[in-house]
Amino acid sequence: MNPTAAILIIGNEILSGRTQDINVQFIAKRLADLGIKLEEVRVIPDVPGRIITAVNELRAAYSQLFTTGGIGPTHDDITSECIAAAFGVPWQHHPETFAMMAERMGENFNAARQRMATMPRGARPIANAVSLAPGFSIGNVHVMAGVPRIMQAMFLALEPELPRGVPITMRTVYGMGIFEGAIAAGLTDIQTRYAHVDLGSYPFRREEKGGVAIVAKGTDVPALEAAIAEATDLLAAQGATPVQGEPL
Amino acid sequence: MNPTAAILIIGNEILSGRTQDINVQFIAKRLADLGIKLEEVRVIPDVPGRIITAVNELRAAYSQLFTTGGIGPTHDDITSECIAAAFGVPWQHHPETFAMMAERMGENFNAARQRMATMPRGARPIANAVSLAPGFSIGNVHVMAGVPRIMQAMFLALEPELPRGVPITMRTVYGMGIFEGAIAAGLTDIQTRYAHVDLGSYPFRREEKGGVAIVAKGTDVPALEAAIAEATDLLAAQGATPVQGEPL
Repeated sequence: MNPTAAILIIGNEILSGRTQDINVQFIAKRLADLGIKLEEVRVIPDVPGRIITAVNELRAAYSQLFTTGGIGPTHDDITSECIAAAFGVPWQHHPETFAMMAERMGENFNAARQRMATMPRGARPIANAVSLAPGFSIGNVHVMAGVPRIMQAMFLALEPELPRGVPITMRTVYGMGIFEGAIAAGLTDIQTRYAHVDLGSYPFRREEKGGVAIVAKGTDVPALEAAIAEATDLLAAQGATPVQGEPL
Repeated sequence: MNPTAAILIIGNEILSGRTQDINVQFIAKRLADLGIKLEEVRVIPDVPGRIITAVNELRAAYSQLFTTGGIGPTHDDITSECIAAAFGVPWQHHPETFAMMAERMGENFNAARQRMATMPRGARPIANAVSLAPGFSIGNVHVMAGVPRIMQAMFLALEPELPRGVPITMRTVYGMGIFEGAIAAGLTDIQTRYAHVDLGSYPFRREEKGGVAIVAKGTDVPALEAAIAEATDLLAAQGATPVQGEPL
């Protein structure tokens, strides 16, 4: 069984529509490569009770939980102390991080910035090349920045520590000029015969041309390819022009 | 009190990283204008038990629930029957929709497409200009397509039916060339004095220039503007160049 995961986005700025999230797609793709099955994403506001409840629900339900957002120095950055509360441990200075930041920042290491060196007891910092202040892991929870390039650096630094499974692979065939309704019965038949392949059907339109993307996802690559070969035949039989490969 | 809302994205294609969601931001912005407070977003896989549980949790917790995805004609489109199961009502042909689609599609109205005219008993169709097959509402749950331009047409068609509150407004000031840590104490002070304004601080970088965006959000526009005026003074006092308005 592949490990499972959830992402918790602590983000008023996503819920207000101010910011377009792009962290989910980055993490989702990396998790697929690592063989970790992403099972849920939640976006919640910067409210302590909401954060604590969601962290405890999701860390119990999945083998790994990744959070993004709320670990900066300002008043609205409350993720770290909420993680401590969720785990029932003190929120305290992390000595190595505190010393490192004090040295690097000198007189600019004010009270606000000292909060970024304050972590739940037992946290393991996630050092990274982009931001001086680290993220951290505690138990199966990985606490990362919301700013995409910092989050990405933290995730890549964290990867060697994560459990792995069989990579989750996708194969796709595009049928141009066809509607889903015309191939639905045939797809159901393919899905039935490849029960352990996750077969999806997605209409698309690019400029004035439209069609259907048939996506096979799973850990058994020969089965994915066999299912896509059958979907390709199904599309061709309906008069569509099948094109295998990456999105057009 | 403004009405509250959640979005439930039924989307293997989001969890796999194949597709970048853009529906959340569209819905979030519209809800803010309508005065409906978006409190949570969840993304879950196309699995019946997951859909039924999430629908029942979220429709109980918030005054409105919007779902996207899973209402097409193929085997992986299972949202509609899961909504029926969540409400404990039969999933049955919707007579007006069935008749309309039968007339418009003629001999192409096959078994797969008839599923799109099948709804939980008591559903109210969401007709729209883009797709022949409607979305639907049942109780406080609004079931929409996943394809963005179809979802948008459905949402706009639905808007007149939604409860409204005081519009949720944002005002922003950008401080160029400054770090959050330098203004954190001052921001905490402003937030304390404007307790009913939701004050957020977001680092940004555009090309090689960086800074901080201070965002005030809420229903009391004079208070938002007063808080942003104070934040502007705070930024100027720190030597940043404050710029009010839309994202740079």
